[in-house]
Formats: sequence, structure tokens, C-alpha cells
Amino acid sequence: MKVKIDGRTLNYRNVWMEGKTINMIDQTRLPFEFRIHKTNSYKETAEAIRRMQIRGAPAIGVAASYGLAQASLEFKYLEPKKFWKLMEEVTQEFLNTRPTAVDLRNMVVRMLMAMKKAETPPQCVEIAFNESQRIAEENAEACKNIGLLGRNLIRNGKGVLTHCNTGALGTVDYGTALSIIRFAHYQNKSFYVLATETRPWLQGRLTSWELTQEDIKHYVIADNAAGYYMKKGDVQIVLVGADRILSNGDVINKIGTYTLATLARENKIPFIVAAPTTSIDLNLKTEDIRIEERDSREITSLRGYNKEKHEFQIIKLYPTDQAKNPVFDITPANYISKIITENQIIEPPYNLKKQLI
Amino acid sequence: MKVKIDGRTLNYRNVWMEGKTINMIDQTRLPFEFRIHKTNSYKETAEAIRRMQIRGAPAIGVAASYGLAQASLEFKYLEPKKFWKLMEEVTQEFLNTRPTAVDLRNMVVRMLMAMKKAETPPQCVEIAFNESQRIAEENAEACKNIGLLGRNLIRNGKGVLTHCNTGALGTVDYGTALSIIRFAHYQNKSFYVLATETRPWLQGRLTSWELTQEDIKHYVIADNAAGYYMKKGDVQIVLVGADRILSNGDVINKIGTYTLATLARENKIPFIVAAPTTSIDLNLKTEDIRIEERDSREITSLRGYNKEKHEFQIIKLYPTDQAKNPVFDITPANYISKIITENQIIEPPYNLKKQLI
Repeated sequence: MKVKIDGRTLNYRNVWMEGKTINMIDQTRLPFEFRIHKTNSYKETAEAIRRMQIRGAPAIGVAASYGLAQASLEFKYLEPKKFWKLMEEVTQEFLNTRPTAVDLRNMVVRMLMAMKKAETPPQCVEIAFNESQRIAEENAEACKNIGLLGRNLIRNGKGVLTHCNTGALGTVDYGTALSIIRFAHYQNKSFYVLATETRPWLQGRLTSWELTQEDIKHYVIADNAAGYYMKKGDVQIVLVGADRILSNGDVINKIGTYTLATLARENKIPFIVAAPTTSIDLNLKTEDIRIEERDSREITSLRGYNKEKHEFQIIKLYPTDQAKNPVFDITPANYISKIITENQIIEPPYNLKKQLI
Repeated sequence: MKVKIDGRTLNYRNVWMEGKTINMIDQTRLPFEFRIHKTNSYKETAEAIRRMQIRGAPAIGVAASYGLAQASLEFKYLEPKKFWKLMEEVTQEFLNTRPTAVDLRNMVVRMLMAMKKAETPPQCVEIAFNESQRIAEENAEACKNIGLLGRNLIRNGKGVLTHCNTGALGTVDYGTALSIIRFAHYQNKSFYVLATETRPWLQGRLTSWELTQEDIKHYVIADNAAGYYMKKGDVQIVLVGADRILSNGDVINKIGTYTLATLARENKIPFIVAAPTTSIDLNLKTEDIRIEERDSREITSLRGYNKEKHEFQIIKLYPTDQAKNPVFDITPANYISKIITENQIIEPPYNLKKQLI
């Protein structure tokens, strides 16, 4: 992804590994400070995922995969039985960092299956490093292809509405829904983006930051204003990502996605979900979904920037913490116009078990 | 309204006049500090409305009416021609403080018509003080009646979802939608309130504060979570206020209202608008509505409380002010299950010119 630093435009990935160090763009400092957060142990990596220094379903999956490579290196000289026991525990620890993202599970399970082919811990280390690298590369490639496949859905003219951050900052590079916006922009199309601020975490800040790096015209709007712009006729398409896509086409994504889908259908606006196939979960059933509820203080407090002091501050918005904070919702398949993966554009009626190529 | 201060429960109005001083609960300090803001001249009063120290359509209408009384006193000793010229200008100044609220216009026009019956400036002063007092009393009485008329719409059990602040803090006392909640609570019904935080101004803070004073069980939720709770089946009714209600039943209200109405209809949940008849505008047509857009910095910055320093602070959420900030939207009549005024419960199809009693 492009990052403007001191007047120059550099190319960055969101997360990458050098030696045993995982580098990630620290998302708790954006959009005010561009800083690379480095983790040198799997414990630090798990903590960074929990603290949302890295976020977005594919990005945390890749970070966890790299984290497993770190762990294998840390345990390399233990006796094999102990080594494998610890690796199982670390796998579980990574799976528990964020319960909803299926990429995390898919990628971690893939790592585990590859590593288990090793006959010795040192061999496992080698496999873990290679496999995690491959997972990262494949994610970047998949996101690029999502953009190339989806870009023709965007026309010149009206606004493109997007929710949360589905950009390079949520993946290894390019993004999912934002990759489509990026590649449509590279076609020199003329449009603008309406980016919902996405309470409570305000991931719209990250979207705005990425769009600024690419010089893509955009406006942040309150989540409350999405319906207003759709009804007014200013929106040509709604593009969102997914934390999980089920076989029946139901989509689990950032809280507020269901609302946007409802508004889009009501206003006859195409509602598009973009995600790599690693976000598809063919086994989970809608009725078995458990929605993650996070700390109510994420609603009642907020992290912002004090311009005078050049520092981040947490301010209280409410005197109590009398709030509820579900962070995902389920958008039923019948609200979704198309699902775009790196391989195909899937049309309803959805039966992904049969439709996936 | 009830206000708990140092363990005691006192009774307050949101706005009242003593001598030439207008007292208002300062809403920019709530929910952290309960403080009465006093204005001693019409200019200070207009400024308080613009700065949203007082807000809510009926409340600012009453404040402006009191403000006209202040102005008449300030100009009392001028020669009549000058006096009336200035009074016209002040009227215009109050009308310009907030363009959307029809109560403001209705109440100010009523003041002007009453004042014009005066033969001398001193006589006008007397009329202005009496008429503004009457307008305030009538608003308090109307809001009480809205609560009494509407309370039976709330049943025991599930959540009552409300948007923005429609409480005593938006009127002279009791509130509109919140008055219904208040009086249902006085019936000892058992329910809880889901209060949307209502970005960008977070008027959910005020709602939460009022509900806390009344010991009404409630949770603040992100605006994004309203659809989640409706779809989950946790919401029995949606209650909102109105900045203007048109003759055809279309409702102009806080940004996000149209979204909630769409979600309520989709989930077959009653969507109720509560407002005094002063909020009804029988002349305006939907196509002539102009939606107020406020400063984009209301999106990109936020006012919160620094717990350590016990002071309010403005923090930046975005490095740029690349945002759009429409503050009202239009909810078409066909999304609205009932309209409740102080006099009646109005059912669709709406033709308020004929239906109003």
C-alpha cells in the first residue's frame, strides 16, 4: 500500500516478518502517527492482536501464523513431546485472541497441519516460517485479485459507500472492499467514497487514512448518515468486507453491516461483500453463531488525539459504563447482491458449497 | 424532571425565567457536570442556542420566546419605531439560530403576533413576559400529556429503543418520546431502554443521564447496533421525537431516524413519533425541506471528559476535517406506525390537516 512520508510515497505491507520479528503498522496510532509495531515473541504478537494494534480478519490470521512461526523458534530446543504440547497451547491462545474471525482459524489450522508434517522441532521451525510466508503472500495476492475482479462494479459519478476498514490495514496488502475502490481509482474513474466512521472503534479513521494516501476523494460520515445519503440518491454501490461468510451466503461482519444492507435493499442499491476465500466457513451454521460482545468501555470512552500536547488521550464520554457493545452482526444472504472473492463473483441464490471454484 | 444532587432528588425544569434572567441546564456540561447556564440578554440567549447549551426543538423555541421578552425589556425605553424595528431584527436573529426546528418558528411567530397587539413598548414588554411564560407552561403540559397518552404503548418485557435525546432536556419538562418512557416507568412496568448514542453529538449521553435520574434501566448502544437488537428480537417498540412533522406525516428528525424507521419496518416493530403539536408544520412540503449541514469538525473532533484532570477536552479523531455532517433526515410517513401529540394518537394514513384535533 502507498504511504506518504515526508512528501515521498513509499510502499508498505500491513504486516510482514523479518527474521523472528513481526512488523505491523500500529493501528492504534493511526491516523495521527505512522509507526511500525514490532513483536519478537509469540506472546507479544498475541497481545498485539488482543489490543487491536493489528485488526481485520485476514491481517490477524496472518499475524497469528507468523506468531506460530515465532513460537516454534522459541521452543525449538525443547524435547519433541514438550515442543508439540506447547505448540498446541499456543495455537489455542491465538485462536482465543479474537473469537469471530474465521481467517484466523483457517490460517492457524493450515499452519498446524503443515507443521505436523515435520519430524523434528527444527524441521517444524523451517516449515512454519515457509508456510506463514506463503499464507501472507497468498493473502496479498488474493486481495489484489479481489480488486481486479471487482473494480468494474464501480462507475463514474456517484458515491461509493463503505463501512469499517476493509483496506490494506485489514489484510496483508490492498484490502478487500477497499481493494475494489483502489483498483477502480487506478482505472482513473471519477467517484468519491462515503466512509462511515464505524463506531465504536472508528475504523473509518483508518479508511480515511488509506484513501488519503491514495488521493481518493472521500468524506467520513456518521454511521447515522448512511441512510440519508442512500435515500438522497448519492450512493451507487455499498461495498463491505466480511469476518465470516457462511455456506448459505449469510455474512458476519462489523456491527452496522446489517443496517447498511437493509438500507441498501430498501433503496435498490447494490450491496456487495468482498472477502478472500479464507473468510468463508462452509461448516458453521447461522444458528450457531455467537456474536462477540466487547467491553462496554469501548462505547463509554474514546481514544483521540490532543493536538496541543501531541499525544493520545482516553476521554470519558459517559460517567457510567452502562452500555452494550456487540461488535458484529449477521447480514442474511437475501440482502447481498454479490459476493466477490479472489476467484469469482458469486451471485445469489447462494450455496457456496457448490458455487466455490 | 428529577435531578439527583448529593443524594437528594430535586425537581427541575430544563429552562425557566426569573426576572430578566433565563436559566437553562447547560447541556454541554452534562452528563459530567450539572450546571445552570444563565443568560441576561437576548444576545447571550441566542448564543446559547447556537452553541447548543440548550437544544431540542421545543426547548430552543421556549428559550427564544424568553429571549424575545429579554429583548423587549432591553429596548423598552427606545422610541416606538426604533423599538419595533429592533424587535423584528431580534426575531430574525432567533429564527436563524437553528434553521430546522419548527417549534422555534411557531413559538417566535406566536410571540410576535401577541406583542404586536401592544400599543407602547412598555406594554409590549408585559405581553412578551406573559406570553413566553404561557408558551413554556403549555409546552410542559403538552409533554406531560404525551407521556400519559403514550405510556400504554409500552409493555412489560423487552427493550424500548430510542434515539437522540427526547427528554425533559429537549423540552421544558418531561420530554416527548422520553415522556412516554417516564410515565410507563411510573406505572411500575418492567422494561429497559436501549438508547442510541446518536453521533455526532452523542445526545444519548443526555438520555442516559435522564434515565439514571429516574432509575430507569438502560444501556447505551452504538448507532450501528440498533439493527442488531431489532433483528435479534430484543426491541418491542421504537420511540423517537420530531423536529418537524409535515401534513402528509413525513417526519424531519435527528440524522439516523430514517435508518431506525427502515429497520423497524423490516423487523415489524412499531415505530412511534412523539411530538407536541407545536412541532407540526402544516404548510411545508417535503420537497421544500432543506437539511441543515453543520461543521464537519463535529464529526472529526469530540468533546469528552478527562477523568484525571476533571475537565472537558476537545480531542481530534481525524487529522483532517474531510467529513460531511447532515444533522437531520426525513422519515417518510409510510414508515411511521403512529404519531402521538398531547391531544391524540394519530394513525396512518396521515393527513394532518384533517386529523388534528
